[in-house]
Amino acid sequence: MKILIPEEFAPNTHLTLPEGTQLVTWDPSRPLSDDDVDAEVFVEWYATPEWLRANLPRLKNLRWIQSLFAGPDNLKAVQIPGDVVVTTGKTFHDATVSEQAVALTLALVRRLPYCGELKAQHSWDKRLFAPTALRPEGRVMSLIGARVTIWGFGSIGAHLAPILTALGAEVTGVARSAGERHGYHTVADVDAVLPTTDVLIMILPTHPSTAGALSAERLALLPAESFVVNVGRGSTIDEAALIEALRSGRLAGAGLDVAAHEPLPADDPLWEAPNLIITPHVAGGRPLGFEKVFEHNLHALLTGGEFLNRAEL
Amino acid sequence: MKILIPEEFAPNTHLTLPEGTQLVTWDPSRPLSDDDVDAEVFVEWYATPEWLRANLPRLKNLRWIQSLFAGPDNLKAVQIPGDVVVTTGKTFHDATVSEQAVALTLALVRRLPYCGELKAQHSWDKRLFAPTALRPEGRVMSLIGARVTIWGFGSIGAHLAPILTALGAEVTGVARSAGERHGYHTVADVDAVLPTTDVLIMILPTHPSTAGALSAERLALLPAESFVVNVGRGSTIDEAALIEALRSGRLAGAGLDVAAHEPLPADDPLWEAPNLIITPHVAGGRPLGFEKVFEHNLHALLTGGEFLNRAEL
Repeated sequence: MKILIPEEFAPNTHLTLPEGTQLVTWDPSRPLSDDDVDAEVFVEWYATPEWLRANLPRLKNLRWIQSLFAGPDNLKAVQIPGDVVVTTGKTFHDATVSEQAVALTLALVRRLPYCGELKAQHSWDKRLFAPTALRPEGRVMSLIGARVTIWGFGSIGAHLAPILTALGAEVTGVARSAGERHGYHTVADVDAVLPTTDVLIMILPTHPSTAGALSAERLALLPAESFVVNVGRGSTIDEAALIEALRSGRLAGAGLDVAAHEPLPADDPLWEAPNLIITPHVAGGRPLGFEKVFEHNLHALLTGGEFLNRAEL
Repeated sequence: MKILIPEEFAPNTHLTLPEGTQLVTWDPSRPLSDDDVDAEVFVEWYATPEWLRANLPRLKNLRWIQSLFAGPDNLKAVQIPGDVVVTTGKTFHDATVSEQAVALTLALVRRLPYCGELKAQHSWDKRLFAPTALRPEGRVMSLIGARVTIWGFGSIGAHLAPILTALGAEVTGVARSAGERHGYHTVADVDAVLPTTDVLIMILPTHPSTAGALSAERLALLPAESFVVNVGRGSTIDEAALIEALRSGRLAGAGLDVAAHEPLPADDPLWEAPNLIITPHVAGGRPLGFEKVFEHNLHALLTGGEFLNRAEL
């Protein structure tokens, strides 16, 4: 049984495979070799819709696609035969995306970009920090006691929330149903929690229902001096409204690892928005725990068992 | 019994005091009022040595000084009568200083200053991040699996270490004795652990034995591409050697909340060191948990009990 694995990812993984299986690499910059179109398993990662449309139908024996993405949006661009199992990289990016969310959040509340300006001016100016209060003049200057809302409370949120709690934050999740999830209080109606949110961390997937979810109206529900962090998908924020909220000073700052249009064009107004940290979609990108899931799923394929992370495309 | 409490701090604390006690504020910008020199308790915070020398001897009934600083270095400048108890703000700054240490560490490994440069250039350039590996070409790009050494492993370290562990780091402490402390592996010889340290977090106090502790020789023991963070005291780093290690590119970066000379003079070469984040000694500054310690110690004073955080000056 031939398994196609991304050339870029192959050196970073160490799979234990049963006899009779063979790993072969593929590269999104080249068509699949005619020698490899008999592959039954395809590990998917950074394939363009064009590449998928040109090459996936050539895999006549294809039985299973394992994506390395938590949200394999690109697979939606192609017709996948109904008898091909698709599994996602859900959980592979929990730790890395959580880390980026914490990095952006702490940089914002601890005013690291402002400290960068002070450095450029050779200025040891402590006035903004007004000692003795965690919230001088209402400014959120620490995660200690800060109210953090995680919008999109799946497996990344489950990893992220305890880190924020350890840092002293009060965490609320926004999920499909109110109650408790991953040991945290959740609400179903984001509008109800926005007015008491100091830091809104968005981890929403791309979906028609999430397009522009953080709208001008919802931004207006956030308190003055609050922060927005997005490590989900760029499509979920009305970027023009976010820019306006930053320019007007209503928001104290934002951190975006994702944008509606990636790569972000050089003339995009986001680049010039004040108090905004932009990272070029680098939160995840390093699938962790792939081996365990893949080996489980390969066993499921060979023995007719249950797959982990089965996708509903 | 009169208790002198800093005017700046008074609005941020809510003490429950026994009958017969009276809170009076003092301000380091003015001499103590003649009306208040009968105070028996002095809560100390940001008093200059000059102020202390001029005013402390006037407190003829003084029995106890509670500092809000974890390391009340300024009290060393005055002669304190032997029968006056001194207690420190140890633990008051554990959470805030830990938060700043994590903020600086994550900003460094996640390359947020570099992302700031990309933003200024309107550039969505992912090349540095080389997806699929946590350590592309040996660069430390994440705390996941990174080896973090906490040099000075007291109560701040005990708070900080589990946060770093939750972020995926492997934490080692440097303490007076090797073995285990706060549940973490410790070594007594920092030189032994520097060669396997990806991020060195320094939380050393000012002391003759720590002056210039991170010397040129010790910086040379750190691996290429490692990071240094200092949230302790500036006197503990040979700053000229650190600047050289940053300029040469041996260190991937550093984050300093403290400097040997504070406020850092405008012509100090630290300002122009590359890959260096400077914050103007704002990690702590907001004593947390003061009430509980103060109320315990006041009870000890009134009843002849044991004080918490008793200092050895």
